[in-house]
Amino acid sequence: MANQPSIAERRTKVWEPYIRAKLGFRNHWYPVRLASEIAEGTPVPVKLLGEKILLNRVGGKVYAIQDRCLHRGVTLSDRVECYSKNTISCWYHGWTYRWDDGRLVDILTNPGSVQIGRRALKTFPVEEAKGLIFVYVGDGEPTPLIEDVPPGFLDENRAIHGQHRLVASNWRLGAENGFDAGHVFIHKNSILVKGNDIILPLGFAPGDPDQLTRSEVAAGKPKGVYDLLGEHSVPVFEGMIEGKPAIHGNIGSKRVAISISIWLPGVLKVEPWPDPELTQFEWYVPVDETSHLYFQTLGKVVTSKEAADSFEREFHEKWVGLALNGFNDDDIMARESMEPFYADDRGWSEEILFEPDRAIIEWRGLASQHNRGIQEAR
Amino acid sequence: MANQPSIAERRTKVWEPYIRAKLGFRNHWYPVRLASEIAEGTPVPVKLLGEKILLNRVGGKVYAIQDRCLHRGVTLSDRVECYSKNTISCWYHGWTYRWDDGRLVDILTNPGSVQIGRRALKTFPVEEAKGLIFVYVGDGEPTPLIEDVPPGFLDENRAIHGQHRLVASNWRLGAENGFDAGHVFIHKNSILVKGNDIILPLGFAPGDPDQLTRSEVAAGKPKGVYDLLGEHSVPVFEGMIEGKPAIHGNIGSKRVAISISIWLPGVLKVEPWPDPELTQFEWYVPVDETSHLYFQTLGKVVTSKEAADSFEREFHEKWVGLALNGFNDDDIMARESMEPFYADDRGWSEEILFEPDRAIIEWRGLASQHNRGIQEAR
Amino acid sequence: MANQPSIAERRTKVWEPYIRAKLGFRNHWYPVRLASEIAEGTPVPVKLLGEKILLNRVGGKVYAIQDRCLHRGVTLSDRVECYSKNTISCWYHGWTYRWDDGRLVDILTNPGSVQIGRRALKTFPVEEAKGLIFVYVGDGEPTPLIEDVPPGFLDENRAIHGQHRLVASNWRLGAENGFDAGHVFIHKNSILVKGNDIILPLGFAPGDPDQLTRSEVAAGKPKGVYDLLGEHSVPVFEGMIEGKPAIHGNIGSKRVAISISIWLPGVLKVEPWPDPELTQFEWYVPVDETSHLYFQTLGKVVTSKEAADSFEREFHEKWVGLALNGFNDDDIMARESMEPFYADDRGWSEEILFEPDRAIIEWRGLASQHNRGIQEAR
Repeated sequence: MANQPSIAERRTKVWEPYIRAKLGFRNHWYPVRLASEIAEGTPVPVKLLGEKILLNRVGGKVYAIQDRCLHRGVTLSDRVECYSKNTISCWYHGWTYRWDDGRLVDILTNPGSVQIGRRALKTFPVEEAKGLIFVYVGDGEPTPLIEDVPPGFLDENRAIHGQHRLVASNWRLGAENGFDAGHVFIHKNSILVKGNDIILPLGFAPGDPDQLTRSEVAAGKPKGVYDLLGEHSVPVFEGMIEGKPAIHGNIGSKRVAISISIWLPGVLKVEPWPDPELTQFEWYVPVDETSHLYFQTLGKVVTSKEAADSFEREFHEKWVGLALNGFNDDDIMARESMEPFYADDRGWSEEILFEPDRAIIEWRGLASQHNRGIQEAR
Repeated sequence: MANQPSIAERRTKVWEPYIRAKLGFRNHWYPVRLASEIAEGTPVPVKLLGEKILLNRVGGKVYAIQDRCLHRGVTLSDRVECYSKNTISCWYHGWTYRWDDGRLVDILTNPGSVQIGRRALKTFPVEEAKGLIFVYVGDGEPTPLIEDVPPGFLDENRAIHGQHRLVASNWRLGAENGFDAGHVFIHKNSILVKGNDIILPLGFAPGDPDQLTRSEVAAGKPKGVYDLLGEHSVPVFEGMIEGKPAIHGNIGSKRVAISISIWLPGVLKVEPWPDPELTQFEWYVPVDETSHLYFQTLGKVVTSKEAADSFEREFHEKWVGLALNGFNDDDIMARESMEPFYADDRGWSEEILFEPDRAIIEWRGLASQHNRGIQEAR
Repeated sequence: MANQPSIAERRTKVWEPYIRAKLGFRNHWYPVRLASEIAEGTPVPVKLLGEKILLNRVGGKVYAIQDRCLHRGVTLSDRVECYSKNTISCWYHGWTYRWDDGRLVDILTNPGSVQIGRRALKTFPVEEAKGLIFVYVGDGEPTPLIEDVPPGFLDENRAIHGQHRLVASNWRLGAENGFDAGHVFIHKNSILVKGNDIILPLGFAPGDPDQLTRSEVAAGKPKGVYDLLGEHSVPVFEGMIEGKPAIHGNIGSKRVAISISIWLPGVLKVEPWPDPELTQFEWYVPVDETSHLYFQTLGKVVTSKEAADSFEREFHEKWVGLALNGFNDDDIMARESMEPFYADDRGWSEEILFEPDRAIIEWRGLASQHNRGIQEAR
C-alpha cells in the first residue's frame, strides 16, 4: 500500500508521452509559413520541432532541406549562394545540394571528391494547401495531409487567410490555452466582445462529467476531441464572491464558438468564430522547447469570386486587428505566464485542475495515445 | 592518516549549513518593503528566499500570499484583478482567494466547483514595525519578531528610516562585507569620511585572537556576534610597503563604529554610525541565489515630535546621499566583485583568511548552529 | 565484431586530446597584446586559457599575475590601486603583491599578519618579442619561445606589425578555418583578390593523398604541419554544377600563399601573403571555451630603417583595411557559423570530411600527440 503511486503520479503516467513531447510530434504535418511568403528562388530559413530547415520554391513547387551543411556544419542560410536553379551551394566550400532530394551533386572546390553523389542532406516533405506551406518532420512515407488538419479545413469552397507569430511558451501551453473553454474569462474586456456584440459568459458550470467531451479516433481520419461544455453546462453570467455579485459576462446578440475541437498534431477549430459565418483554425507549431509559432487562420465558405475577394478584404481590414491580434493577444499573455510553471515539468504534477478541464485531460490522453511519434531533443 | 580531511575540508564542514543556505534561512523574519510602499488595496509583488510573494494592505493590515495561482500556475500579479476588498481573483479563470488566509473562496467561471473551500494559497505571516514590513517564510507559528532583529531596534523611542536596493550578489557576501571590520580600507576615499570628519584607520592589527568576538545565543533572544576588534587591536593609520610608508588613514575628530554586531537571520548593527547619535541597522535579504535586497536603515533615539521630524528631514536630506548611497556604494561594489568566486561554492574552501576575519568565521559558525531552518531550492 | 568502434568513434579517439583541449594547451606561449598596449605602470587585464591575468610593465619589463586576490577572490583590476612601483594592493583589504614574483609582501590593513611573506599570487612567464607580449600558462620552467612560433618569425631582420580582435568561436575552429586550403572559396568576392590582382582558384582537386602534408616534429623545434595541397593538386578555376559551368575563380597575376603551415600551440604561417614580399602569421588564442583572440600579424624582411618605416606605413594604411579586416572578415564569419555544431562536441564525430581536409586531420593528430598539456576547465 505504501508504495502505491500518488494521484499526481498516476495521472502524469497516463500523459507521459505528452509530457515527453516538448518538441512536438514526429510524422505529422505542421504549417510553417504562408505560401505567399515563399517566392521562387528565394530561400527562407525556419525552425520546426527543433530542426533548422531551409525552404525554397523551385519551378513553382516548395522544397525543404536541412539548413546545415554536411561538411563542417555551417548554416547554409547564413549566406545563401545558389548557382543553378535546382541547387544551393554551401558558401564555405561549395558543397552543392539539390533542393528536391538533398543530394550532394557537386563540390565546387573539389569536383572529383568521392563524397559527390554519395551523400545527401535530409529533406522534408512539403505540401501547399489553402495558402499555407505544411512541412512533415518524420520517417518514411508521409500520412495524407487531410488526416492532420481539422475536418472541413481542406473543403474545396472554403477560403482561408492567416498570419503567424512567435510566442514565448511551449506549444502544449498554446494548445491547452486555446482548447480551454473556461479561459473565456480572460477575454471579458476585449473590444471584440462589445464591438461585435458577442454573447460571452464568464465561464461554464459543467453538468454530467461524462458528457463533456467526445473523441474521434477513426482510422484514416483526423484524431481529435470535441469540447461539449457549451451543450452540457450552464453559462455563468454573474460572478459571485462570498455571496455578493462581483462581475458580469457580456449578454450580446451573436452566438459564436458553438463547436470547439482540437486535433493532432495540435490545431484548434472554433466554429463559428469570430463571426457567425467564419471558422477559426489555429495551430501551435513547436519551434523549440520554449517557443511556438502561433499560426492563426480564418476560413469562410465562399461560392463566388466576389464573395472570396470580399472575405479577403474583410480579413485584412477587420479581423486581423480585432480578433487575431486584439482578442488573441490575451491568450498569448496567458501562455507566456504559464511557461515558468511547466518549463521544468513540475507543473504537470503540481497543477490543480477543475471540472471544465475535463476537455484538456481528454486531449492529453488522446495526444499521448494517437500521436505518430515523439520528437526527441538531440 | 591519509584519509584525514584537509584544513579546507574541516573548516567548510563546520560551516556546511551556512554554505547550503544559498537562499537564506527559513522560520525567520526578513524586511521586504517600507510600510509606506504598501498602500491599501494596491498589491505589490516581491521575491523572498526564492519565493514569489504578493503583498497587499487590506483594512490597514498587510497580508502576504503566494503569487502563483494553484490551478495553472500563472503569476497573479501579472494582471491584478480584485473584485472584493478581501480577495484577489486570478485573471485567467477567476479562481478567487482571500488575502487573510489564502482560501479559495470562489471560482468566478465555475461557481459550483468542488475545489472551492478545499484549497488555499500558501500565506506568509507579516509584521509591520518601525515603518518596515517583515515577512516570515516558514512552517508553523512564527517566532516573535524581537528575536530576529538586533537588540534595541524595536525600542519605543527609537525612530527608524530606511531604503532598500537590489544587489547582484548572494546575501552571505553582503553580510560578510558588512560585518568585516578590515574592509574599512575600501572607504578610505569616501567623501563621508572627510566631509563628516570621521576617524577612519586603514585597518586594525588584532591582539589576542580569543578576545576578538563575543557571541550571544541566549534562548528567546536574538542570536548574534559582536566584533571586538576595535577594543583589542591597534588601529593602523600608516600603511607600509616593503618598509616605506605608502598610504594613510583619516585622523578626524569623530569616533564612530564603536560597536559592530551581526544577528540572525542576517542583519548588522553599527553603533554609532554614521554620526555619534545614530545607529545603522542593515539587512541582507535573500532574493534568489545571486541577488539580495540591501535594506538599510538608520535609527535615532528621539523624545519629542520636533526631534523626530528633524531626524526625518536630516535622514532624507543628508544621510541618504552621504552615507547610505555615497559611502555604502563601495560595499555593493565589493560584494558584486566577490560573487563569481563564491557562486559555485569554490570560494568557501579556496579563500585564504587572515586575523581580522575571526569575526566572520564566528558568524559563519553561529549562523550554521542557530538558524531555524535552511531554505532549499525547489 | 559487433563491438568494434564505428569510423566516427575511431577517428575521434585519435583526436581525443584535441577534443578535450577546449581551453587550449598548457605549457605553451601565446601572444595576448601588442607591446605598445602595455605602458609603464598601467595594468591591463586579459583572459587566456580561461584564466584571468593582469599585465603590467614595471621598469620596462612586462609582468603577469593572477587577477584575483587570494583573500576573498575579488578581481584586482576592478579598481587598480598601486602604492609602490613594484606592487599592486588589493582595493578591498590592502593585500599587497609584487609584480615580479606575486609574493604577498604586505597587508596594509594588518601589517603583522602571519600571511605576509607566506603566500603568493600565481605568476605567468612573459616574453616580449617582435612587438608582441607572449604569456606562458603552465608549470615549471617555460620552453624557449622559439619552439612555439613558426620558423622564421623571430628572424632578426623581419619586421612584424599586427592587431587582434575577439571572435565568438572556439580557438580550434579558428585554427582549422585558417589552415583549410579549401576555404579559399569564401574569399572569392573579397576586394583584396581583384584589388591586388591575386591568383585565387575556387579550390583544389588533390592528387596523391599521401603527399598532401608534411609534419615537422623534431625535438627542440616548433612542431607543425605543412599543407602541400598547392603542389600536389590541380587548382579549380571553373565550378561545374550538374555538368554546366556555374562560377569562376580569379586568374590574377600575383601568385601568393605558396607555403601554408600551422604550428603548436595554434599559429598559422602563410607565405607569401597578402603580397609577394609579405608573410602572414596569425594566432588563434584561447580566451574561454567559446571565444578566441584572433591575433593577426604581417612580417616583412627589411634591411634598412627606411624599409622598416615604409613597411609600417603600408601596414597601417593598406593591409589592415584590405587584408586583415576586409579579407579575413570572411574567415571570422565562417568560424562563428561553425561554433554551434561543435560547441557540444557532436560536430567532431558528425562532420563529413573530404579530400582537402587531409591537412586538418594531420593537424588534429599532431596537436593531440605533441602538445605539452591540456588546460582543464576549473
